[in-house]
Amino acid sequence: MIKKVDHIGIAASSLDEIKNVYGKILSDIQGHEYEVESQKSKILSFDLGGVHLEFLEPSSPDSPIAKFIDKKGPGLHHVALETDDITSELEKLKKDGLKLIDNEPRIGMNGAKIAFVHPKSSGGVLLEVVEK
Amino acid sequence: MIKKVDHIGIAASSLDEIKNVYGKILSDIQGHEYEVESQKSKILSFDLGGVHLEFLEPSSPDSPIAKFIDKKGPGLHHVALETDDITSELEKLKKDGLKLIDNEPRIGMNGAKIAFVHPKSSGGVLLEVVEK
Repeated sequence: MIKKVDHIGIAASSLDEIKNVYGKILSDIQGHEYEVESQKSKILSFDLGGVHLEFLEPSSPDSPIAKFIDKKGPGLHHVALETDDITSELEKLKKDGLKLIDNEPRIGMNGAKIAFVHPKSSGGVLLEVVEK
Repeated sequence: MIKKVDHIGIAASSLDEIKNVYGKILSDIQGHEYEVESQKSKILSFDLGGVHLEFLEPSSPDSPIAKFIDKKGPGLHHVALETDDITSELEKLKKDGLKLIDNEPRIGMNGAKIAFVHPKSSGGVLLEVVEK
């Protein structure tokens, strides 16, 4: 079952620029930086009461984020929804007729299990399902 | 000061389709429908623990949402951040060099005060600031 929004993923051309702008917008909220090799991206994450704004800067030209930015420019990229049990969640989504990008969960940041749902079957929204 | 994410705004071609798909994805979470005349849109909103997924279907061809869908297709449209005091928040954002779409707050859904920040100054993200 989906519990909550875990994060909003945002494609960014430059995390330095984001750090400058969102450091001002979010004033007291400290950003944290990670490198996610499987996504070929650097991440700057701001925690707004358990819902994160996650800015992703491509660390390689063949990163999926680089391709997204080439096509659409920087901006909103995906929404991640948290579940208790990703395996049964993916089974349920398949049964409900949704098209999955990842049929099996893979390992994301901090060992979380993640999988993506194809935007064509979810109203144009790239959805990520996360089990922490 | 920004407190939390209030909602994620998503442009939708058909709320009936969204109701069908997200009714399955979010199973137990009930959607609520509104009409927002100022935005020329119908809204279907799902409350995930205080953070809402708000799907917007244009109710007129000259709705900003209709224009967005014509250009980019349905999908992620904006992120709304909640503040206690929108007037001082907008002053602060202007002082910080952000470009505002609304220099003064206007009235949104349920009497909330809202204003939009231009995506060009916020990393390609259309930001809404909300005081409830």
